[in-house]
Amino acid sequence: MELKAKQQYLCQPVEHIDITQFNAVPLIEAMGRMAYSARDLARAAEIFDRMIADPDCGIILCLAGSLVSAGLKKIFVEMIRSRMVDVIVSTGANLLDQDFFEALGFRHYQADAALKSGVHDAKLRELRIDRIYDTLIDEEELRVCDETVRRIADELPPRPHSSREFLAAMGAFLEREGKKPVESILLEAYRHGVPLFCPALSDCSAGFGLVAHRAGRQGAPVVTIDSVADFDELTQLKIHLRETGLFMIGGGVPKNFAQDVVVAADVLGVEVPMHKYAIQVTVADVRDGGLSGSTLVEASSWGKVNTTDEQMVFAEATLAVPLIAAYAWHKGTWRDRSARNPNRILHDKTRSVKP
Amino acid sequence: MELKAKQQYLCQPVEHIDITQFNAVPLIEAMGRMAYSARDLARAAEIFDRMIADPDCGIILCLAGSLVSAGLKKIFVEMIRSRMVDVIVSTGANLLDQDFFEALGFRHYQADAALKSGVHDAKLRELRIDRIYDTLIDEEELRVCDETVRRIADELPPRPHSSREFLAAMGAFLEREGKKPVESILLEAYRHGVPLFCPALSDCSAGFGLVAHRAGRQGAPVVTIDSVADFDELTQLKIHLRETGLFMIGGGVPKNFAQDVVVAADVLGVEVPMHKYAIQVTVADVRDGGLSGSTLVEASSWGKVNTTDEQMVFAEATLAVPLIAAYAWHKGTWRDRSARNPNRILHDKTRSVKP
Amino acid sequence: MELKAKQQYLCQPVEHIDITQFNAVPLIEAMGRMAYSARDLARAAEIFDRMIADPDCGIILCLAGSLVSAGLKKIFVEMIRSRMVDVIVSTGANLLDQDFFEALGFRHYQADAALKSGVHDAKLRELRIDRIYDTLIDEEELRVCDETVRRIADELPPRPHSSREFLAAMGAFLEREGKKPVESILLEAYRHGVPLFCPALSDCSAGFGLVAHRAGRQGAPVVTIDSVADFDELTQLKIHLRETGLFMIGGGVPKNFAQDVVVAADVLGVEVPMHKYAIQVTVADVRDGGLSGSTLVEASSWGKVNTTDEQMVFAEATLAVPLIAAYAWHKGTWRDRSARNPNRILHDKTRSVKP
Amino acid sequence: MELKAKQQYLCQPVEHIDITQFNAVPLIEAMGRMAYSARDLARAAEIFDRMIADPDCGIILCLAGSLVSAGLKKIFVEMIRSRMVDVIVSTGANLLDQDFFEALGFRHYQADAALKSGVHDAKLRELRIDRIYDTLIDEEELRVCDETVRRIADELPPRPHSSREFLAAMGAFLEREGKKPVESILLEAYRHGVPLFCPALSDCSAGFGLVAHRAGRQGAPVVTIDSVADFDELTQLKIHLRETGLFMIGGGVPKNFAQDVVVAADVLGVEVPMHKYAIQVTVADVRDGGLSGSTLVEASSWGKVNTTDEQMVFAEATLAVPLIAAYAWHKGTWRDRSARNPNRILHDKTRSVKP
Repeated sequence: MELKAKQQYLCQPVEHIDITQFNAVPLIEAMGRMAYSARDLARAAEIFDRMIADPDCGIILCLAGSLVSAGLKKIFVEMIRSRMVDVIVSTGANLLDQDFFEALGFRHYQADAALKSGVHDAKLRELRIDRIYDTLIDEEELRVCDETVRRIADELPPRPHSSREFLAAMGAFLEREGKKPVESILLEAYRHGVPLFCPALSDCSAGFGLVAHRAGRQGAPVVTIDSVADFDELTQLKIHLRETGLFMIGGGVPKNFAQDVVVAADVLGVEVPMHKYAIQVTVADVRDGGLSGSTLVEASSWGKVNTTDEQMVFAEATLAVPLIAAYAWHKGTWRDRSARNPNRILHDKTRSVKP
Repeated sequence: MELKAKQQYLCQPVEHIDITQFNAVPLIEAMGRMAYSARDLARAAEIFDRMIADPDCGIILCLAGSLVSAGLKKIFVEMIRSRMVDVIVSTGANLLDQDFFEALGFRHYQADAALKSGVHDAKLRELRIDRIYDTLIDEEELRVCDETVRRIADELPPRPHSSREFLAAMGAFLEREGKKPVESILLEAYRHGVPLFCPALSDCSAGFGLVAHRAGRQGAPVVTIDSVADFDELTQLKIHLRETGLFMIGGGVPKNFAQDVVVAADVLGVEVPMHKYAIQVTVADVRDGGLSGSTLVEASSWGKVNTTDEQMVFAEATLAVPLIAAYAWHKGTWRDRSARNPNRILHDKTRSVKP
Repeated sequence: MELKAKQQYLCQPVEHIDITQFNAVPLIEAMGRMAYSARDLARAAEIFDRMIADPDCGIILCLAGSLVSAGLKKIFVEMIRSRMVDVIVSTGANLLDQDFFEALGFRHYQADAALKSGVHDAKLRELRIDRIYDTLIDEEELRVCDETVRRIADELPPRPHSSREFLAAMGAFLEREGKKPVESILLEAYRHGVPLFCPALSDCSAGFGLVAHRAGRQGAPVVTIDSVADFDELTQLKIHLRETGLFMIGGGVPKNFAQDVVVAADVLGVEVPMHKYAIQVTVADVRDGGLSGSTLVEASSWGKVNTTDEQMVFAEATLAVPLIAAYAWHKGTWRDRSARNPNRILHDKTRSVKP
Repeated sequence: MELKAKQQYLCQPVEHIDITQFNAVPLIEAMGRMAYSARDLARAAEIFDRMIADPDCGIILCLAGSLVSAGLKKIFVEMIRSRMVDVIVSTGANLLDQDFFEALGFRHYQADAALKSGVHDAKLRELRIDRIYDTLIDEEELRVCDETVRRIADELPPRPHSSREFLAAMGAFLEREGKKPVESILLEAYRHGVPLFCPALSDCSAGFGLVAHRAGRQGAPVVTIDSVADFDELTQLKIHLRETGLFMIGGGVPKNFAQDVVVAADVLGVEVPMHKYAIQVTVADVRDGGLSGSTLVEASSWGKVNTTDEQMVFAEATLAVPLIAAYAWHKGTWRDRSARNPNRILHDKTRSVKP
C-alpha cells in the first residue's frame, strides 16, 4: 500500500444504524427459544422491555467502549427521544471525542481491512489519522473538538463543576451554535433533560480542552471537574428514583459507578432498593477477576443488583445492541412511558453545595 | 452448603506473592525461545528491564483490575522500593478498597471454588460478605475503610485536590496512624515520593467517603477532587521526564489516561517524545474496538506509543505479572537506577493553580 | 432447588430458528456501514452471497460446536434445500448425537439459568440428564440413539467405510424408517445428494454404536470407519469442483480438514486453486496459536485459502449464523443456482478402492 | 519488508523448554495462596501431583493446539520418561506435522513480530514457508514428512489399523532409522510402551501421506485407519486401568474422546468409575456451548468426570504447562510411581478383531 493522500483514507464514513427501520421482534422471539447467546440476548431484550413497562423504574444507560464511532449513536439518540432512558453514565470518549465531535460536523471513517493489522499505522501517523480498530479519525478535526471544549470551559464560571453540569453546558452550546439538524446524544439529552455523567471526564477530549483552559488562565481561577459531585448527584438520583434498571454496554468505570450508588445511598443513611433490573452486553471474561466481566450475580453479594431480572450477553456491542434496542422500540412499550425528568431534582440539589 | 457463620468463610486470607523469593530469569529466558504467549511474556519482561536500564526513562505503572485483592500488592510495593517505577496510575479499587483497606489491618480471603458460580451470593449478602470472583471481603470492614477516607477528607482544606494530592494525604495518614509494619502501595509511594493518580477517584471507596464528607459539611465548603488537575499534573510529569515507558496491567482508564499525556503536552504546545517503551498484560480482546484490548501499535497512529519496543501479553495478570516483575528484580538492573523523584516538580507546579 | 422429577427439567424444548421468517437484508446492509463485528458480519454475509452467485464455486459448510442442539438445525436443512451448500464437514456430535437424535423423535431442552453454574450437575447425573451449557438431554434417549447407530452398522457389509458412506446409510435409514415429517440434516443431505463427512466419526454417539457393533460381532468381520477414505474423497471433490468456498462455523477438525484438501490435491500431483472464498464465525482467539482461531490469512501462507474474499466474524454462532443465512436466503441468489451433485463423482471413485 | 531469502526467515529455531532446569515448586505454592488463574494453576498442579501419587490411577494426557511447534515437546517427552503419563490422546498436528517432523531433523522457527499480522503471508507463500501465528515451517520439509509417512504406510500390511498401531509403527521407524539422539514423543512413547491415539489421524500430515499411499496402490489393498478401533482400544484401557486422571491441554477431539470412554465402557456393559481427576488448560470460553470450553463440572452431568478433583486453568498453554509440569517433576512424586504398561493388554486385545 503506497502512502495515499489523506482524503483517500477518509472517504467512507461510518453510518449510524437506525433501529426504527427493522423490526427485530420476530427474530428476538425466535432466539428466545434457542440456546447460548441467542437465548441470553432475547432474555436481555425482554428484561429491557420490562424495565420500560415498569412505571416505577428509572433506567440508567451505561456506555463503555468506542460505541459512537462504531455507528451506534443514533440508537442512543432514539432511546432518549423515546423515553427509554432517564440517566446516562458514559466514558468520555463516547460523549466528547465521538458524539460532540460528530455534532461539530466531523465524521468517523471506515478503515480498509488491511489497516486493522496495524502495519500501516506509521503511515497513518504521518498523515495525522488516528485509528480505532477498523475506524479512522482526522486528528486535526479532533483538535478542533478539543479546542471547542476549551472555549466552552472558558465561558463557564471558574468553579468546580460536576461532569453533568459540564456536559449540559456542552449540550447548550450545541443547541445554540451547532449546525442543525444534527443527531447528537449531548444535544438530545440536553433537550429532554436527561442527565449525562462522565465519572472520568478528563480521560478524553475534555481533558485536552480543560488542560488548555487551565494553562490559558495562567494562574487565575479555573473550571475544575469535581467527580465527587457526580457520585453525589447520581446517588441523589437513585434515592429519588428508588426503583432502577441498568442497561450496561461494556464494563469499566460506568458499570462500577452506576452499581455503586446503591451502597452510596446506604452510606448516606438512606435505604434504597438494589437495582431491580440489570442487563450487560460484553465480551469481557469473568476469569480475570476484573469488574468489566464480573457477573451481575456477583454484584448481588455486594447488595447492588437484584438477581431476579439480570442477564449478561456475551456479544460484541455492534451485534447485540441494535437487536436489543430495535426489539424494545418495535414492541412500543415506551409509547406509554412518561419521562422521569431527573434533572429537576438535581437543579435543586446542586445549588446547595459550596465548592 | 449450609449457611456457615461469617468467620468460616473469612478464614483463609489471600497472601501476597514475594518476587524476591523465586528467580524467574532462567524460566523467562527459556520462554523467550518458545512461541505464543511465552515468547511475548519474555519479550515484555526484557522490555521492562530495558526501561529500567535506560537512564533517561521515567517508568509509569498502570493498574486496572482487582490486582491487590488477588495477591499482587507486594510486587508493586517492591517495585517502588527497588526504584522500578516513578509514577503510578490506578483505578480506585486497587489503591482505596484494597491497598488502604489492608493497610488498616483488614484482609482479603480466599473463597471456596463453589462460591465462584454465584449460586451462594444471596447467602453472602445476608452475611454482609462481598465477593470478587474467588475472593471475599467483609463488607463491615470496607465501611470502616470508607469512613476513614471521610475522616481524611474532613481534615483537608476544603478546596479542589488532584487525586495525587488526596492519595498523598492518605499515605501521610498511614505513616502517622497506620499500624506498623505494613506493606502498602500508598505508604511506600508516599515514603519514596512516587506520585499516585486515580483519574476516576470517586469510583471506589473514596467515592463513598467523599460523599459522606460532603453530606457532613451540610453546605459548608468541601473537598472536591479535580480530575483535570490530575491530567495536568501527569502531563507536566511527562514534559519533565521526557522519555517514558509504560508498564500496563489491564486496560481501562489508567491505560488511556497515561497514553494521552503525549497528546496533552502537544495541546499545551510542548513537543514531547511518544512513550518509548510500552508493555501491557491483558486478556481483553482487540475485536470489540475497546481501548482495553486495543493494540499498542494502534496507539502509535495516535502518536502516543513508539512501536519499536512494545509488547502485549495475553495472560491473566496473576500469572504474568509475578514472572515479569521477578525477572526484572532478579536481573538486578534496578540496583544502578536512581530515583526520578517526580514529586518535586509537582510541588512547584501545583502551587501555581488557583482553584 | 429440590430434586425435581426428570420431566420437570425436560419440558421446554429448544426450537429451531427459521430463516425464511425474518428478512435480515436491511439489518445486514446497515451493519455493513458500521464498524467492528457488525461490519465483519455484513462482509461475511456478502461473501457468502457471492459464493452462491459464482457459477463455478462449490460450497463447503464446516460445522463445529454444539450447533444443532442450540437451535440452528433448520438453517442447515434449509441451506441444503436451497442449494446453498454442496458438501458438509462436521463434528460427530452435530450429526449423530443431535441431528440423528432429533430425527428419532427426541428433543433438546432449555435449561434453567441456575443450571448453567454447574452446581446442580450431581442432581442431573442422578436423573440421567446430560447438560450442554444451557441445554439438557435425556441420557436414556441418547442411548437409544447409540443403539440405533449400532443397528445400522450391523446391517452394513463388514468392511471399511468412509464416514460419508456411513452417514449416507444413516440418511437412508431415516428415509426408510424415520417418523415423518422430520427436519434432519442427515435426511435432507441424503435426499439432495449432499455428501456429509465426519473426519472423527468415532468421537460421538457413532463411536458408542460402533464399539457395541464390534463387540457384538465377537471377532467376526466388522464395519470399520476409514478416515483416510474421507480425506481422499473430499480431495477428489475439491479436484472435481475446482473453485470452492468455505463457510465455517467454529474451528476444530472440520476447519482443518476442509482447508487441507488443497494441499492434498497437490500431494496427489493435481494442481487445484486455493479456496476462493472463506468465512468463519468463531469466538476463538488467535493468540493461543490453535487452528480454531487462526486467521484465514494465515491459511494463505499454507496455500490453502485465497485472501481476497475471506472474513472472520467474532461472534457466538447462535447470534451470527441466523443473520448470515437469513441474509443469503432473502437475497434469493440461490434461486438461480444449480446443484453441484458431488455425490455422483464419489460413487464412481469409491468403487475403485479395495480395502 | 523486502522479500528476504528463505533462510533469513528460517534462522531462529524454536527451542523446547526443559522443566528439569527450573524448580517451580516455590512459585506454584505462592500462587496457591493468591486468587484467579494463579490459584487455579496451583490447584491444577497439585491435582496432577495427586494423580501421580495415586497408585491406582492411570494418567491420560490430551493434546490439542499447536503445542510441539511452540516449544513444549521436551515436556511431554520428559513426562513419558518420568512415568507421569500412561496414555496420550492427541491431534495429528502435534504428533505428525510437528513431533515426527522434528524427529526427521527439521525445525520450527521463530517468526518476527511483524509477520504475525498476516500482511506478509503472500510473500511467505511465494517462499513456501508456512506460518503458525509466530512460528514458521519450511513447506518443503513438511512434504518430506508427508512422504515419509507414506513410506511407512507402504511397508505396513494393507488392512485397517488403529491410529495407535500406526503411531507405534512410526515410533518403530524412528527407533530404526531416525538420526540419534533425538527428542521425540513418538519415539519415547514407543520405547516406554505408552500408547498414542490420534482419533482424527487423517487430519494432518498423516492424511497427506496416507492419501498418497492409497493413490500409489492403484486399487490394490491399502492401509486404512480405523477410528472405531481407537475408541474400542481406549475404552479397553479404561476398563483395564479403572481409576484414571486426565491432563488436558486444549480441548477439541482429544478432550471429548478421552472423556467419552467412561460412557463407552457402560455401553459395553462394563461399569467403570468416572475419571477421578481432571485438569484442563485452555483459553476457550464456556459461553459458546462448545466442548473445548465446557466445564469439567458439566462433564459430570454426563457421568464422565468426578467433580471432587477437577480444575480448569484459564491460560495459554505455553505459560501454564511448563509451570504445572515443572512443579510435578520437582516434587518428585513420580520417582516412586511404577509404569502401567497399558500396551500389554492392547496387544492381547487387538489380535482378536478381524477387520
